[in-house]
Amino acid sequence: MTAPDLSRRLASEGLGTALLVATVVGSGIMAESLTRDTALALLGNTLPTGAILVVLITILGPISGAHFNPAVTLVFALRGDLARRDALLYVAAQVAGGILGTVLAHLMFDLAPLAASAKVRTGPPQWFAEVVAAFLLVTVILGGLRSAPAAIPWLVGLTITAAYWFTASTSFANPAVAIARAFTPTFSGIRPLDVPAFIAAECIGALLALLLARWLFANTADKAAP
Amino acid sequence: MTAPDLSRRLASEGLGTALLVATVVGSGIMAESLTRDTALALLGNTLPTGAILVVLITILGPISGAHFNPAVTLVFALRGDLARRDALLYVAAQVAGGILGTVLAHLMFDLAPLAASAKVRTGPPQWFAEVVAAFLLVTVILGGLRSAPAAIPWLVGLTITAAYWFTASTSFANPAVAIARAFTPTFSGIRPLDVPAFIAAECIGALLALLLARWLFANTADKAAP
Amino acid sequence: MTAPDLSRRLASEGLGTALLVATVVGSGIMAESLTRDTALALLGNTLPTGAILVVLITILGPISGAHFNPAVTLVFALRGDLARRDALLYVAAQVAGGILGTVLAHLMFDLAPLAASAKVRTGPPQWFAEVVAAFLLVTVILGGLRSAPAAIPWLVGLTITAAYWFTASTSFANPAVAIARAFTPTFSGIRPLDVPAFIAAECIGALLALLLARWLFANTADKAAP
Amino acid sequence: MTAPDLSRRLASEGLGTALLVATVVGSGIMAESLTRDTALALLGNTLPTGAILVVLITILGPISGAHFNPAVTLVFALRGDLARRDALLYVAAQVAGGILGTVLAHLMFDLAPLAASAKVRTGPPQWFAEVVAAFLLVTVILGGLRSAPAAIPWLVGLTITAAYWFTASTSFANPAVAIARAFTPTFSGIRPLDVPAFIAAECIGALLALLLARWLFANTADKAAP
Repeated sequence: MTAPDLSRRLASEGLGTALLVATVVGSGIMAESLTRDTALALLGNTLPTGAILVVLITILGPISGAHFNPAVTLVFALRGDLARRDALLYVAAQVAGGILGTVLAHLMFDLAPLAASAKVRTGPPQWFAEVVAAFLLVTVILGGLRSAPAAIPWLVGLTITAAYWFTASTSFANPAVAIARAFTPTFSGIRPLDVPAFIAAECIGALLALLLARWLFANTADKAAP
Repeated sequence: MTAPDLSRRLASEGLGTALLVATVVGSGIMAESLTRDTALALLGNTLPTGAILVVLITILGPISGAHFNPAVTLVFALRGDLARRDALLYVAAQVAGGILGTVLAHLMFDLAPLAASAKVRTGPPQWFAEVVAAFLLVTVILGGLRSAPAAIPWLVGLTITAAYWFTASTSFANPAVAIARAFTPTFSGIRPLDVPAFIAAECIGALLALLLARWLFANTADKAAP
Repeated sequence: MTAPDLSRRLASEGLGTALLVATVVGSGIMAESLTRDTALALLGNTLPTGAILVVLITILGPISGAHFNPAVTLVFALRGDLARRDALLYVAAQVAGGILGTVLAHLMFDLAPLAASAKVRTGPPQWFAEVVAAFLLVTVILGGLRSAPAAIPWLVGLTITAAYWFTASTSFANPAVAIARAFTPTFSGIRPLDVPAFIAAECIGALLALLLARWLFANTADKAAP
Repeated sequence: MTAPDLSRRLASEGLGTALLVATVVGSGIMAESLTRDTALALLGNTLPTGAILVVLITILGPISGAHFNPAVTLVFALRGDLARRDALLYVAAQVAGGILGTVLAHLMFDLAPLAASAKVRTGPPQWFAEVVAAFLLVTVILGGLRSAPAAIPWLVGLTITAAYWFTASTSFANPAVAIARAFTPTFSGIRPLDVPAFIAAECIGALLALLLARWLFANTADKAAP
């Protein structure tokens, strides 16, 4: 098996992020339209997101690593696993793919392709929640690489399933997804004004996880996936 | 282990599609009878469908490939994995099995064996949703064949779990299931008049996925299932 | 590893059936006490049952085979996998364990240890549903033994998860569990008078599955679990 | 791979227990704020807890064994798998980590860092439920070590998923988590006065499981995790 070329890796990051965002946004629209109970709507948003993450990371992981997330790409670039130029292109593909995902969801539900969200998500508790969410996500990925690399699709899907509920922000934990969600005036949206602080918090959480992982998971070589 | 003969392969496709449709239709009837909250009813429809897909693909995959879906059979025939005559027989077994599944569900719930649905499911957003759903399903199958063939039962179950919620059509993604669901006047039904456009959309989505997969997953040989 | 002696095998069948029934009955009591929505109560009954089946079959399978179900024991006895005398003792342990499970659940929820159910579950559609449920369960077990024996705990848990919803009877599919559930006047109960017909239907479904499996899964030897 | 030093093992126990408690407490707060249906709130508490257990045990198991639970540490100390001094330090790390987890959840949801719960959880049925819950948890861990060690993260996550519903106490089954939950005046709290009896019941259940496992799982050596 030869390493996939860069164009396919970028297509993989773009496609994966698009389908991830289409799932988050689309299931939010569906859930909101079917029930008045917000807990049930969140459940209808959580299960599809966790499920599609397992699927997308499994099938696209061998192509591009299946980051779908600039904070994750940042961490792998800092670890030296990804060239700086490739990392920038990954992020561009993720952001473009994410916005395309919002468009896909809107077209399926007969909405305008893109529209700004008015949902306020701001303040220190929300920002702290995003730090925790991104910290957890990156710790899980880096810990999983050492203990059970073949299980990473499941670990990420389950982490986001949990984090939707236990973080006050419902765990965006992903700058590309945060940007894409600024363009939907539906259940999963976020006011564009609130996105930069979310991105900053996510990057801080990811970097804290990288620091911790260097110590906590040291002296144990990454296992090769079977 | 000798390859199963054609009669057993067709029985496997028919039985699997029957049990899949019995689950979709039966759980829809159960859910609708127990709650007035449509999101909860959809959840009671989603979980059984995802679960039974994992089970049926695991146990029947070694017999017939566990397509249970003419769009999937079409893709494998175009790839040359299945003779044209066998493909036609597969489709016949799937359609017959699907209708039998509706009968099974109706008999368990004391309804007439077959009755036409009046549920309107039409229009470009719904059709586009079916294109997306079938595209996703076939991409997952073809990607899974390369990255993790033993995980395909889980990948398909999780894909449909997500797609029930994020596609506006609740993801039929399967012409045989669409036909079978035209015969139930319950939660999961579809008006017979609306079926042909769904089938067309599903085939388009499947073919787009085949085109993409030829490029995206190229140069990486299919792994053998363990 | 030496084969466990009979006393441990019987303890395994009794303990497993007790914990299975405690889960079914206890989660039914919990769910019913927390919500008025019957679909939600069924969900609160389904998820624990599916989850505990995966767990119990995984840990007790190597001791006794983890039948926890006289219809399954009947099938294995007819296949010659289990001596007739052992099969009778298995069934006795399952029935006793099941009743103990009802007692456990009742004591945890501060109810009388045992009391008859008044919940009517009768009529041809319900009986047909039990035939389908037991047929599916045994087909899954026998098919799983050939295609993926290590996955059987998951296959059984997922099968019951689906069958709770798509069969009109919520899938007892187990004579020992049916008997035990006759002793609880709560969500999961069944009127004692209705139990014999359920047991007959379950045995018919199991035997039909055995017949089908002999043809459908023929010429493919059982795989050894890894 | 060298064995991790004690400081990393303690950090692993503290971090894991903190994230586990943050999930339990945080998802309880989220669920309670989104719905008035208590069954739905319990579901929104159950799924994240089960999911995060799979994740945390997978990534931290190779570092410290991923007990996150003084009752589990007690059992491994009595088996001779852990030195007495290390066991005491494990318990201290778990208790401190658990309280930190409550603080994390409260800060994310803009609540005071710590506050006593007023939720009464007492009486023989609740205590008996905790005996059953801890008995089940330890039986699953010790049985899993023999039958499927690589599956233990899943087995524990699924066990707690089931036990949330079928035990009258919603299955604390963990003295460190019980202490941490005494400090939250929210959905998952427990009155401090009621904690000692819960801890006693949990230790009794764990010890009963150890006794049973010595007989039931005897003569079958622990498998090495792959």
